[in-house]
Amino acid sequence: MGFNCFIKFLLFFSSLFVSTIELGVAISSSYIFIDIMSSESEEQQLSKKAAKKEAAKQEKLRRRQEAAALASAASSLSVEEDDPYSSNYGDVSLPELKSCSQTDAGQWSLAISSMEWTPVGALTQDLKEKEVLIRGRVHITRPVSKNMSFVVVREKGFTVQCLVTTQGEGVSSQMVKFVAGLNRESIIDAIGVVSVPGNPIKGTTQQVEIHLRKLYCVNKALPTLPINVDDAARSDAEIEAALLSGDKLPRVNQDTRLNFRVLDIRTPSNQGIFRIQCQVGTIFRQFLLSEGFVEIHTPKLIAGSSEGGSAVFKLDYKGQPACLAQSPQLHKQMAICGDFGRVFEIGPVFRAEDSYTHRHLCEFTGLDVEMEIKKHYSEVMDIVDRLFVTMFDGMNERCQKELEAIGRQYPFEPLKYKPKTLRLTFEEGVQMLKDAGVEVDPLGDLNTEAERKLGQLVLEKYDTEFYILHRYPLAVRPFYTMPCYDNALYSNSFDVFIRGEEIISGAQRVHVPEFLAERAQACGIDVNTISTYIDSFRYGVPPHGGFGVGLERVVMLFCALGNIRKTSLFPRDPQRIAP
Amino acid sequence: MGFNCFIKFLLFFSSLFVSTIELGVAISSSYIFIDIMSSESEEQQLSKKAAKKEAAKQEKLRRRQEAAALASAASSLSVEEDDPYSSNYGDVSLPELKSCSQTDAGQWSLAISSMEWTPVGALTQDLKEKEVLIRGRVHITRPVSKNMSFVVVREKGFTVQCLVTTQGEGVSSQMVKFVAGLNRESIIDAIGVVSVPGNPIKGTTQQVEIHLRKLYCVNKALPTLPINVDDAARSDAEIEAALLSGDKLPRVNQDTRLNFRVLDIRTPSNQGIFRIQCQVGTIFRQFLLSEGFVEIHTPKLIAGSSEGGSAVFKLDYKGQPACLAQSPQLHKQMAICGDFGRVFEIGPVFRAEDSYTHRHLCEFTGLDVEMEIKKHYSEVMDIVDRLFVTMFDGMNERCQKELEAIGRQYPFEPLKYKPKTLRLTFEEGVQMLKDAGVEVDPLGDLNTEAERKLGQLVLEKYDTEFYILHRYPLAVRPFYTMPCYDNALYSNSFDVFIRGEEIISGAQRVHVPEFLAERAQACGIDVNTISTYIDSFRYGVPPHGGFGVGLERVVMLFCALGNIRKTSLFPRDPQRIAP
Repeated sequence: MGFNCFIKFLLFFSSLFVSTIELGVAISSSYIFIDIMSSESEEQQLSKKAAKKEAAKQEKLRRRQEAAALASAASSLSVEEDDPYSSNYGDVSLPELKSCSQTDAGQWSLAISSMEWTPVGALTQDLKEKEVLIRGRVHITRPVSKNMSFVVVREKGFTVQCLVTTQGEGVSSQMVKFVAGLNRESIIDAIGVVSVPGNPIKGTTQQVEIHLRKLYCVNKALPTLPINVDDAARSDAEIEAALLSGDKLPRVNQDTRLNFRVLDIRTPSNQGIFRIQCQVGTIFRQFLLSEGFVEIHTPKLIAGSSEGGSAVFKLDYKGQPACLAQSPQLHKQMAICGDFGRVFEIGPVFRAEDSYTHRHLCEFTGLDVEMEIKKHYSEVMDIVDRLFVTMFDGMNERCQKELEAIGRQYPFEPLKYKPKTLRLTFEEGVQMLKDAGVEVDPLGDLNTEAERKLGQLVLEKYDTEFYILHRYPLAVRPFYTMPCYDNALYSNSFDVFIRGEEIISGAQRVHVPEFLAERAQACGIDVNTISTYIDSFRYGVPPHGGFGVGLERVVMLFCALGNIRKTSLFPRDPQRIAP
Repeated sequence: MGFNCFIKFLLFFSSLFVSTIELGVAISSSYIFIDIMSSESEEQQLSKKAAKKEAAKQEKLRRRQEAAALASAASSLSVEEDDPYSSNYGDVSLPELKSCSQTDAGQWSLAISSMEWTPVGALTQDLKEKEVLIRGRVHITRPVSKNMSFVVVREKGFTVQCLVTTQGEGVSSQMVKFVAGLNRESIIDAIGVVSVPGNPIKGTTQQVEIHLRKLYCVNKALPTLPINVDDAARSDAEIEAALLSGDKLPRVNQDTRLNFRVLDIRTPSNQGIFRIQCQVGTIFRQFLLSEGFVEIHTPKLIAGSSEGGSAVFKLDYKGQPACLAQSPQLHKQMAICGDFGRVFEIGPVFRAEDSYTHRHLCEFTGLDVEMEIKKHYSEVMDIVDRLFVTMFDGMNERCQKELEAIGRQYPFEPLKYKPKTLRLTFEEGVQMLKDAGVEVDPLGDLNTEAERKLGQLVLEKYDTEFYILHRYPLAVRPFYTMPCYDNALYSNSFDVFIRGEEIISGAQRVHVPEFLAERAQACGIDVNTISTYIDSFRYGVPPHGGFGVGLERVVMLFCALGNIRKTSLFPRDPQRIAP
């Protein structure tokens, strides 16, 4: 019954993304998606024909494996009445899942009642001979015979091999059949004894084996999934190595991943990416709170258009024209006018730009900071410097497992950075480029290519992939940027780069209303359209400055992931607004 | 020149909010706003006529005071050339503010170069005889004579009295004139020596006095402000006490406050409110991170309509119909489907409802939680219980100064709560109401009045203002709520109350797709319209539940503030989308 709906789901997505994905060959009970629209970093695009051929081969292989499993598990998966051990396995009923602690409890409730769950990631050799209860997903079943089967259980990216055999206590051949016949990705509760095998276990993260005594299926997945988690978790290197020995393994393309994101984010690398993202936010906050910053929440619904320049999402607000904030710029500056001294915000930022690149999204998570300046805009750069070094140190310390998990699928070199961040002026940067034979406009902006090149030169000369470039030409910054003291062609502003890509933009703001109006006019802006902004500064305001960072870019560049869609949980770009 | 713009600003706001505010009498150099549209908690609405009369009287008083100050300060405020101490005061020039550390530094740069700023809130008697540098605002000046003046300096809600007198070292009568003539709310850097007066100082938070040696104006405010911070900071009790002795003090109404929010948020109570709001977010995160939750960021731009039911803000997304998320419900559940186990999000939530009440906003900050359930939905209530007790404890411990500042303007009793939160079933609640003579539908929802009454009964019987009411009737909860095990008329759901108002709504979700479709149908929902939601659960999903809280409501109810606009930095309601 679910299958019709499932097909509808597929059709729904295929109609939404028909321009970017190709559904490819979907034969009977399995699938294969062809890598038509791969990201920049993915190589080796196969022709459709060759891919179809490979897909058919793969399909045959998978069907053979399934047939073997089914033969062992026989036709019916239900618990047989005449099994004296029937209470040790089976499907958990919905009433039980509503409240397992009722008096008329079922077998599952009784079995788990006096036990605590051990996380799969915590299953170590220290637990040898101990009985444990785990909850996880059926990653894969490997039936061996009527009387024996393996099942790999996965929880939050960690995997453990479980063995069910009729030689075990309380295990019937019916139970083996039940376990071997479980659908991939189903949720199970398993009770068993931890054993330490003589040889290392290949293909699981945990180096112990669970000898099962009881296993209950808490929730069944569909027998066929649009993508398999182990296909989605495979590295390019594995695929290429297999190809050398004649095996064509499925490669799941970026759009297919995003269409079935609830499956894709189950891979160890994705589990790592979003746990690291959480850590970036946590360290960002902890550091700023410790420096006396206050976290604020500014409105995303703005009257009129928030800044001009890039495109905004417009909407009707109870009959008034409104738009979604492109940045919290105005409101974080108002918070400074309102005596909060130092503020930060973590929240969504909306850009209706038509940029379909590896580094742009229509909605992303902005990390925004604004602060009083006592003497000099270098105070803002000092915060950037210490904040990011703290963040990088923290990620390397706290997220080792996550970084390893990402590296297994997407190998990358650790970011090179210094305890005290390198600062170059824009003029120095231009000179470095010139010395290397790259001519750029000394009062223009750097294009992506020049930024990359400069990143490379800085790495060679200073051995760092993280640096600040400041004193940008005034002409390439927004009108509210404070010009330099000694040369009005330059400004009290900076960009910050990771691995040759811009990640932060910051500056001292013009806080004197008369001068702000003058600067707006000089930039060709009608002062009347921004009068509320200018007027905010008429009631007394300290000199101030700030900066903004995209959370997704931090994670993307720290891990050298090459596509920002990989670091957004449910990305939005000009072609995608679902799921 | 700035004044025209300022008038334009006033006119801009008056045209925007003409329906809710009355600009009242704005005579020459001062203003008075009449309290026409006060919030529920504000009493004593005066007639326009009486108010105008009072305003005129007030205006006279203020002009008299100003005249006295100006007489003392004389006409010109500029630094006079023939003053041997002219380097000890004056306006800081814009070039200096761009970079005070240049070689050709001005007097201000030289004066502050070797000093660190002391926060006003840190000025205690321990610093007696020490020379300090402070940055703050001119809260008020009190000229005494040509040779002496007081100036109260305010920073982040803390105030200190400063004395400038020609008897002091390096102080000329010109400097006294300069200080006495400073506009309110201007930003100054002041250097002076801490002294401890014999008698307590009235009207300032700090019990020391600074004897000024140098004072520089970093940024000038307009001579006349739309609201004065001390008017905005006054409690009802002060206004009423003054009235008894024949003084009519200005009362700034809620809409005027919001129109000039950058001035309003400078009051000590508002400084407290938003610092407490920051703490609520911080404790919420710290607690959940320590319990293994992962912070996520879900999209606010959603294809179609996010949930149905209440009104949504619609927009065009690159040619596709889209809307703003009314809650992260779907995506936080998808994160559970995606193996994150326990997740939370802090982010904006959008509701296009036409509710113009003390507790509804069109945009607010949602604190959302979703988690796997192992055995029973009480696990979710356990998290709510410990989370909120930790939060309340934390606020009481960490925010004493802030709570006191709020209490001075808006007196309130500390929240009564228990270390282990009271849990009542809906049936028990209905019975308590019945016993008190209030008849309610035992299978319907409680209206606001019944909730208030029950809060009162619970307080009397259990001595707590914070409790959980669970097992709500199934019929009054969304279709995705899990019915109770033993009685399908009820559900595995709960609401949480603070001071008789609902603050949290939570439940176990239906995670079985077939049953979810059945429940949707039973609730009259076309299953086809929610197929993507239902299909998310077809790839295996653990039992799970969660809850949502509004950050602004937590602060409002903890501090009994009576109007949610007081706890939103820049609130959005059906009549307000600015500033």
